[in-house]
Amino acid sequence: MQAVIIGSGNVATFLGRLFIQKGGKVLQVVSRNLNHAQKLAVQLNCNVDDLSGTIDPSADVYIIAVADDAIESVLTHVPNNNKLVVHVSGAASINLLKNVSNNYGILYPLQSLRKEIDTIPEIPFLIDANNAEALAQIKDIASKLSTMVHIATDEERKRLHVAAVFVNNFTNHLYSQAAYFCEKENINFNLLKPLIFETAARLAHLHPRTLQTGPAKRNDIKTFQQHQEILANYPSLLELYKTCTESIQQFNDKE
Amino acid sequence: MQAVIIGSGNVATFLGRLFIQKGGKVLQVVSRNLNHAQKLAVQLNCNVDDLSGTIDPSADVYIIAVADDAIESVLTHVPNNNKLVVHVSGAASINLLKNVSNNYGILYPLQSLRKEIDTIPEIPFLIDANNAEALAQIKDIASKLSTMVHIATDEERKRLHVAAVFVNNFTNHLYSQAAYFCEKENINFNLLKPLIFETAARLAHLHPRTLQTGPAKRNDIKTFQQHQEILANYPSLLELYKTCTESIQQFNDKE
Repeated sequence: MQAVIIGSGNVATFLGRLFIQKGGKVLQVVSRNLNHAQKLAVQLNCNVDDLSGTIDPSADVYIIAVADDAIESVLTHVPNNNKLVVHVSGAASINLLKNVSNNYGILYPLQSLRKEIDTIPEIPFLIDANNAEALAQIKDIASKLSTMVHIATDEERKRLHVAAVFVNNFTNHLYSQAAYFCEKENINFNLLKPLIFETAARLAHLHPRTLQTGPAKRNDIKTFQQHQEILANYPSLLELYKTCTESIQQFNDKE
Repeated sequence: MQAVIIGSGNVATFLGRLFIQKGGKVLQVVSRNLNHAQKLAVQLNCNVDDLSGTIDPSADVYIIAVADDAIESVLTHVPNNNKLVVHVSGAASINLLKNVSNNYGILYPLQSLRKEIDTIPEIPFLIDANNAEALAQIKDIASKLSTMVHIATDEERKRLHVAAVFVNNFTNHLYSQAAYFCEKENINFNLLKPLIFETAARLAHLHPRTLQTGPAKRNDIKTFQQHQEILANYPSLLELYKTCTESIQQFNDKE
């Protein structure tokens, strides 16, 4: 299986690494950012182009791993020979690809991928395609890259993308706010890391609903007041504290 | 080292297990809830009392592991012989113990402990004491239980407790809301677990601030609108979405 990767960011880098690790070959990395593309091409031992030249027409699959709003503009560069074309976006529609090939689809890694981190985490792939043959091909590729492969429509993928914003972006923001508070208060954020790891890890065994603890869950008004006094000089933390506390209380009421 | 544990909840259970695992001996579990106390006493192979009888006066340390607002009421039962007395609370003052012994302090496990989970996670202990001798004793106990032992005043401990609410209670609530949304939308929450694990795990190497990604970080207004449409029937999720998004944007501006 031979691929051309269009893009040179985090997802392009991770997919490229994973692809060759699992026995595939990357023929070419194509990116507007020639500097990034060259760095990735060295890792993947392949050719490179900056969208001004020709994209290799001999690949089995063209993987478009660019920002959502750049997908349409790079499509004009993809060889018009009905090879398989996929994009890797959680939010962009499969229909963006309908004029580029007769065989197209989605290969969306539902994971936060950062090229500066070398270890490859478990990556669920959500896939979709415009016909059965393309779907079989994408399923074959995804199954080589991961043991978690699920077919998902545009609508299902968009919903998982929203949920991912909650468990990744918002969760990480809570970590950031806690770290900011610790730095300002001269206390050691590292002491919280075992708690952070455990809070996530135990979801392997238990539903988060059954794991909710703390003053909001107990409706412990005395502790709310103490906490809000401690946060008095941190309006941004205070706002999150109040919103999350009320949200937990409303959730309690639904039980 | 011989201990009496007062309490039979999650923290009492975990500390008891850890204490005997590290070569200590628990003489007695004392709890208002005799049923819970008996279950724990079986695990720890020790005596049991429901606060109506006598607490064993021969222990080296009395560990008070009850809810914050129950600490004062159980103190009247502790033998008045100046043995070491500690409580395990993140929010309650060390001064609660000043009339019970000449040697007292804090042994606070900064971890979320659930007795139904058998594996023991890494547990940082925050310790404090009323005199140098008691502090040395508590440090000795804590160092047998964990490699992460830090001295912290009431004020430092309270601040870490607030930060812990953010990274544990609020984070877990985001997981719960995402799970709720997935259940209602008939999509598979398990697909998000690798992302949840990775979001936490990479804090081992990188600061959360450098790991922030997503539409709020990019100020991607088109995606906000799409996400808010998807969440239109979920007022509680929508409220969290707006607050967290605004909070991330304000945090961006501080950079």
